[in-house]
Amino acid sequence: MEWEDLARELSQTTETKIVLLVMDGVGGLPLDGRSELETARKPNLDELAKKGVCGVSDPVLMGITPGSGPAHLALFGYDPLRYQLGRGILEALGSGVEVGRNDLVARGNFATARGGLVVDRRAGRIPTEENVRICAHLNGHLPRREGVDVRVFPGKEHRFVARFTAEGLADALSDADPQKEGKPPLPTTPLVPEAAKASAVVNRFLGDVASVLKDEAKANTALLRGFSKFPSIPTMQELFRLRPAAIANYPMYKGLAKLLGMDVMDVGGETGELFDALEKNWAAHDFFYVHYKKTDSAGEDGKFAAKVAAIEAIDPFIPRLLALKPDVLVVTSDHSTPALLGGHSWHPNPFVLVSPTAGADDVAVFSERACAKGLLGRFRAISAMPLMLAHALKLQKYGA
Amino acid sequence: MEWEDLARELSQTTETKIVLLVMDGVGGLPLDGRSELETARKPNLDELAKKGVCGVSDPVLMGITPGSGPAHLALFGYDPLRYQLGRGILEALGSGVEVGRNDLVARGNFATARGGLVVDRRAGRIPTEENVRICAHLNGHLPRREGVDVRVFPGKEHRFVARFTAEGLADALSDADPQKEGKPPLPTTPLVPEAAKASAVVNRFLGDVASVLKDEAKANTALLRGFSKFPSIPTMQELFRLRPAAIANYPMYKGLAKLLGMDVMDVGGETGELFDALEKNWAAHDFFYVHYKKTDSAGEDGKFAAKVAAIEAIDPFIPRLLALKPDVLVVTSDHSTPALLGGHSWHPNPFVLVSPTAGADDVAVFSERACAKGLLGRFRAISAMPLMLAHALKLQKYGA
Repeated sequence: MEWEDLARELSQTTETKIVLLVMDGVGGLPLDGRSELETARKPNLDELAKKGVCGVSDPVLMGITPGSGPAHLALFGYDPLRYQLGRGILEALGSGVEVGRNDLVARGNFATARGGLVVDRRAGRIPTEENVRICAHLNGHLPRREGVDVRVFPGKEHRFVARFTAEGLADALSDADPQKEGKPPLPTTPLVPEAAKASAVVNRFLGDVASVLKDEAKANTALLRGFSKFPSIPTMQELFRLRPAAIANYPMYKGLAKLLGMDVMDVGGETGELFDALEKNWAAHDFFYVHYKKTDSAGEDGKFAAKVAAIEAIDPFIPRLLALKPDVLVVTSDHSTPALLGGHSWHPNPFVLVSPTAGADDVAVFSERACAKGLLGRFRAISAMPLMLAHALKLQKYGA
Repeated sequence: MEWEDLARELSQTTETKIVLLVMDGVGGLPLDGRSELETARKPNLDELAKKGVCGVSDPVLMGITPGSGPAHLALFGYDPLRYQLGRGILEALGSGVEVGRNDLVARGNFATARGGLVVDRRAGRIPTEENVRICAHLNGHLPRREGVDVRVFPGKEHRFVARFTAEGLADALSDADPQKEGKPPLPTTPLVPEAAKASAVVNRFLGDVASVLKDEAKANTALLRGFSKFPSIPTMQELFRLRPAAIANYPMYKGLAKLLGMDVMDVGGETGELFDALEKNWAAHDFFYVHYKKTDSAGEDGKFAAKVAAIEAIDPFIPRLLALKPDVLVVTSDHSTPALLGGHSWHPNPFVLVSPTAGADDVAVFSERACAKGLLGRFRAISAMPLMLAHALKLQKYGA
């Protein structure tokens, strides 16, 4: 019997409401002795640490740096070592592209090739309107190939999603992306024999794109990566009997939420919009995933002060969240993104849980080192969901 | 997907260097309120605790007292519940005995039997030269048995290794050792039906030894234990893409290191020799396992003051280690050996990690109780390797 079996057996629907606020990449490392969280002025987040119980959580395993996919899966109660989701499928779903059983999807970049070499992997970051025009042109002019349907969907700037529909397409394909400029475009190769058909389909498409776009000034070739098919994964309704809502702005997170059966709310990039959406949808759901991206973006850019500012920017909204009186409120991150490293890291996430049944510890500050001394100790992030459900009284007793 | 699969997928070779200093059995229990580590004057080890982050690790599972084999396997990133290594194979490899696929090995004692009873399990601890003479005599005079080749290899004092070479020898055999004096020599028995042949081969050998040595004054019989075959275990090169070196003095630890693919350096019993060897081999490797035995020996002997002295004796060498500027330095033990118990115990190991990406906690003393309040919290020792690799930036990101 594993956690997932327990969840199916013990979960029950109740009137209680859970809010999981993910401050993406909020965990960091000290600069001059203090981390981003230790530097920021954030009285409301610290007040949560005082009121609730704290701990630190490892997204996957100690020492493992996760991508956003596995890190979020764990927070939602799914074993990130069991479910492996391609970035292509997350991007596609998050962009509103419908994906079915016979579909293979990938993330694409329009790029500039000259003299047989990729000279700009992002085609000068063409405007999104250009991208829309080019995708429409491709969908109208790509040659029809027997038994295969291909469509491209524009994203922001140079990004798009490609969807291949045919029988027997496998997703074990290498990225068709040279990764560096000054190299020729790279065909995909099958990583297992069963992916040979998919590889041929994709490479023919790449040739077709180059032909159709040969007169474009910038976007005259395509790079593809993260090939993936629709994964078999149970929804949060099935596993936890929740009515979950996702409030997120970026395609990746919206895609993952949709995959797990969440109702995905459309919000813009302003921090206040997250809380507007939360208030607006409060009545109809009992689990709210709220995704705050700015902490991660600043960390990825290696900007310590900007990350501090991003923490300070969300802090004043916490009282609005508390005014809704959630039965369980958790604030944590999916993974750490220390500005010092300029990327995701393996460091554990600070974690605070506020609930009438939380108990008490002595933590008074929401930070890495303070949370590590909390009642919750150090735990794997996959335990966050059972903890939230338990404090919401949504899990029945195991055994007699 | 488990840690071992992740390791194979994510490990990358870099220029960074890791030092793992194992102070064998250093964890202890208080006498008059202070443990061995809390009693010792060890400013350099405490300085590491201030600089780095601390925690405590369970070798196998909470409450489980490990032998040196499983305890070390865990520290090296191998699941000690998956890989079970006989003491015989470790002793054999550590003593320089070559072991192949058809070989069954065991640790032996020469003993004194009189009137059908074992009266001295160590044959009066005969001098090593005597042991060498007796082994040569046995190898020359043991009767040749069809399809079986047997050789004995002298160790220190009364200890030897026996190696049986034949088709179809299994190692599921009970120890051929009555454990107590005043009892008759004990034949081995097969623990599974497939070990019947091996059992017969071993028992015939024990009879042959008693015949050949019947006129010896002391060493006139043999006891055997820890029957084992060469295990199937991946090397640290395969799993972690490391170029590992082992700096250890005792056969057991050298044997284990060799089994895992480490280059084993020959060092004597003086503490300074560990650091001489470390400096000498610094350029050619990127992972250094340094084994300090004296803390464990004193603990095993139940000598609290001697264990304190052993801690104080290595402390002045820490600056030499730091002068090499390792990217990651971990000081911990494989298991605890409290002088109060006079043997291995189940208590977790104090653990300190020093690295530019360590982060910060408030621990200022290297001891059991201080480390338990550190940022690393309480974790299983099998997480030590992913942590070290992560801080050395030797692990790529998992998933997108």
